[in-house]
Amino acid sequence: MNGAESLVRTLVASGVDTCFANPGTSEMHFVAALDHVPGIRCVLGLQENVVTGAADGYWRMLHKPAATLLHLGPGLANGLANLHNARKANSGIVNVVGEHATYHLQYDAPLTSDIDGIARPVSQWIGRAKAAHDVAKLGAEAVTVARSGSGKIATMVLPADTAWTEVTGPAPAVAPPPRARVDDSAIIAAAAALKKAGSRGMLVLGGHGLLRPCLEVAARIAAVTGCRLSNPGASARMERGGDLPRVGRVPYILSQALAYLKDTDEMVLVGCRRPVAFFAYPDQPSLLTPDHCRITPVADVDDDLLDALERLADALKAPKGKVEGPAPLPEPALPEGGVSVEKIAAAIAALIPDHAIVLDESLTSGRGIFAASEASGPHDWLQNMGGSIGYSLPMAVGCAVACPDRKVVALTGDGSAFYTLQALWSMAREQLNITVVIFANRTYNILRGELTNVGVANPGPRAVDMLTLDRPDPDWVALAKGHGVSAVRVTEMGDFSRAFAAALETRGPQLVELVF
Amino acid sequence: MNGAESLVRTLVASGVDTCFANPGTSEMHFVAALDHVPGIRCVLGLQENVVTGAADGYWRMLHKPAATLLHLGPGLANGLANLHNARKANSGIVNVVGEHATYHLQYDAPLTSDIDGIARPVSQWIGRAKAAHDVAKLGAEAVTVARSGSGKIATMVLPADTAWTEVTGPAPAVAPPPRARVDDSAIIAAAAALKKAGSRGMLVLGGHGLLRPCLEVAARIAAVTGCRLSNPGASARMERGGDLPRVGRVPYILSQALAYLKDTDEMVLVGCRRPVAFFAYPDQPSLLTPDHCRITPVADVDDDLLDALERLADALKAPKGKVEGPAPLPEPALPEGGVSVEKIAAAIAALIPDHAIVLDESLTSGRGIFAASEASGPHDWLQNMGGSIGYSLPMAVGCAVACPDRKVVALTGDGSAFYTLQALWSMAREQLNITVVIFANRTYNILRGELTNVGVANPGPRAVDMLTLDRPDPDWVALAKGHGVSAVRVTEMGDFSRAFAAALETRGPQLVELVF
Repeated sequence: MNGAESLVRTLVASGVDTCFANPGTSEMHFVAALDHVPGIRCVLGLQENVVTGAADGYWRMLHKPAATLLHLGPGLANGLANLHNARKANSGIVNVVGEHATYHLQYDAPLTSDIDGIARPVSQWIGRAKAAHDVAKLGAEAVTVARSGSGKIATMVLPADTAWTEVTGPAPAVAPPPRARVDDSAIIAAAAALKKAGSRGMLVLGGHGLLRPCLEVAARIAAVTGCRLSNPGASARMERGGDLPRVGRVPYILSQALAYLKDTDEMVLVGCRRPVAFFAYPDQPSLLTPDHCRITPVADVDDDLLDALERLADALKAPKGKVEGPAPLPEPALPEGGVSVEKIAAAIAALIPDHAIVLDESLTSGRGIFAASEASGPHDWLQNMGGSIGYSLPMAVGCAVACPDRKVVALTGDGSAFYTLQALWSMAREQLNITVVIFANRTYNILRGELTNVGVANPGPRAVDMLTLDRPDPDWVALAKGHGVSAVRVTEMGDFSRAFAAALETRGPQLVELVF
Repeated sequence: MNGAESLVRTLVASGVDTCFANPGTSEMHFVAALDHVPGIRCVLGLQENVVTGAADGYWRMLHKPAATLLHLGPGLANGLANLHNARKANSGIVNVVGEHATYHLQYDAPLTSDIDGIARPVSQWIGRAKAAHDVAKLGAEAVTVARSGSGKIATMVLPADTAWTEVTGPAPAVAPPPRARVDDSAIIAAAAALKKAGSRGMLVLGGHGLLRPCLEVAARIAAVTGCRLSNPGASARMERGGDLPRVGRVPYILSQALAYLKDTDEMVLVGCRRPVAFFAYPDQPSLLTPDHCRITPVADVDDDLLDALERLADALKAPKGKVEGPAPLPEPALPEGGVSVEKIAAAIAALIPDHAIVLDESLTSGRGIFAASEASGPHDWLQNMGGSIGYSLPMAVGCAVACPDRKVVALTGDGSAFYTLQALWSMAREQLNITVVIFANRTYNILRGELTNVGVANPGPRAVDMLTLDRPDPDWVALAKGHGVSAVRVTEMGDFSRAFAAALETRGPQLVELVF
């Protein structure tokens, strides 16, 4: 077998069974190997930010890495923004980046670039095969890195001649190191802080701290201390709804964030860092916690968070049994008539199917959905951790590949959706079980607020032009059709609810464009 | 005025009158300044690779830099691939990349990234404002760098607080250094080589060596020595057709490239490097010139190529007068019936309007167009110099903004077009005079050949799946409509010619999808 086949066999042996790909000439041996090696599924994306975003979504649902297959430096560059998001979400991904043959690099052919340099800002590990017999071992190492801690971005550079040269065979899987156990001193300090603060305490959770096993322990801690539970502003993945405890989030809008935190005396961090402002604004603080708030970091996102929370519960003498779930709220009525942020929130909260995977990139249009849906049935809530918009449609591809039996719901603004709309085609090709909602307000609406926040009171027409998506109005029904996805446009809330419900009941990709 | 306004005023004072932009919160002060400063046009792109590709096209037509406005590291990352292409084309661009406020960086908010690291692989210069009073001076320096030599990529990082803090004013323009004059020794050696080789000599031209002033001198050199004229495989911009000398190109396909060069004894390089294979293939050479071919480099792309060519012509005692243009060829007949590479070439060559700007990303479908169009009327021929596909639609935006009175013709494969299809929306918004032809063979056809070239004889179904764009078939008429561009689909050559001719006669963007 050649180096490429040794890599594919190593990936499979290491538990990697999915590859999101946009290959080119230098990756052809890897592509050819797919037909010789059973046990790996390859999904094509038409642009690389679809590929890397899909790998991020896949990890978040399964906590095992997918591979990506990317075409030299520019292919990696096209996928870099969603790798940034994935890194900030602590996802594990194995990037395989094709490269010119080792002896060809000296000639600086057009596609020659500094692949390692492009990879570095988004990768915790970079490995470059120097010869074919390196390839399998590097591949196994990349998977180990990707699986370590909460998840890491491992980028492997595969020169074409190391892919096509004969080798002896694949490399065995190498288990990642176990997650670290946090020190007793941190647990003791956190227990004292939460005990003292009572309802003015806040337990802030990140990483797998927002998944069911940890949340059930967090609920016991909240029950015994009275502390609030929150994420630091966003979650890579939060299980919520149904019988799970209600976990708040630090709002994006600065004034709301300051209000949300103002009565917090003690903040305990498990799997995350302290909440900070998304952006700085003139004469506004970067740190969101009040001056009087003491902060106790307990565990880094890579640590064993379940162990830490269980020891914290023990230190607080929290009763062992499962805390009863929150009281149900009245079912929201499905709204009719004109579109508003409140009605959008009510309609979506009412209709989210049980066990849905919700990707929230709804920005200003969806400001109310998170709060409204906390009493919906059990579902997963995934958010953008890196701030690079255009993440939800690619993520939806990865989540749907990872969890074919669940409904994936991607809620996205039109501006965000445009960055990676090619993901729609992968949804259609793979007939993925995804409902996309486009909030088509035809503006970068968030930036209108931000113009004011940074002190621009009366933007002129040229500034406003940079924030609007009209002239021409995008037609998302046509864009979906062009990618092979069925779509419908609605402009009124009753129609929206009916269209959204119908899409959810249909297997395969469906798109609803809500124009307002 | 604040730092952002000082930058906009400095850019305008330095001759930058166009900004391609996809801004976010950290760039809002720059956006606000657009309304206070006359003399700068701002064009919105819905994805950053549209923005950077447009800036590349703008430079290639005007040889003056546009600015780009990009949103922190991820915004730059999204535009990186077309910056790679621009750098390989020796284009000049001033990137303005917003950044968190200097004091906010320490908190590692979601969008925090190593912007300098992301910029480095594609930038010849990186400047980071440390305080507001740096901004104007750095902006002037960035423009000077971008305009130096053949053109450079200058990336300026603009922290939000340096943009919003008050400053005294803009900075004056700084002229770039003049292009270097090449040594006499290189001229003498090249003259001797071409004289000796006669018709077995080849003068290979790059950079502005492929524009009219240089080509007219090259024609005199060819007339006096009998040498062939060629580009090294592709051209950032070549003026051709009409009375201009016919300049060949080294073919992409390796066997054809070797055949094209096999009778060359002496190769003289003016404004380019020696031709090399685009990719390495097992047991095939990386260098395309035969062993017996001597290579004489005369001038780097940054040097004064017109001066070098004039001195070379003088050294060869080439007569001073303009060489008569090549004999006209018979007008190609417009083909009818089924689609073939030859018929595509004939139809396009027959219909290219005089003074058109042609962007060639037609790959396998357009293999014949370059040769067929050498006897068309005068036009510009622009190619991808960096190999990252998805360049032609963004480039078309930039070329059309630069040259509103000329027709821009973008010839692209469907696979390539998908990477940056959002460019269609900018064409519609700005009502740019662009005709797009999509060659919809619904496959990465070039990769089918490459699979064979790298030694894969019988690709299996999973490999073939990675090379095909069917299942579902993209609908480019719908995709164009979704972006606000009128489009028509044809499947037969007579219909194609009529549709292409009609599109060329219509002002504003039009798209023709040729399905075959």
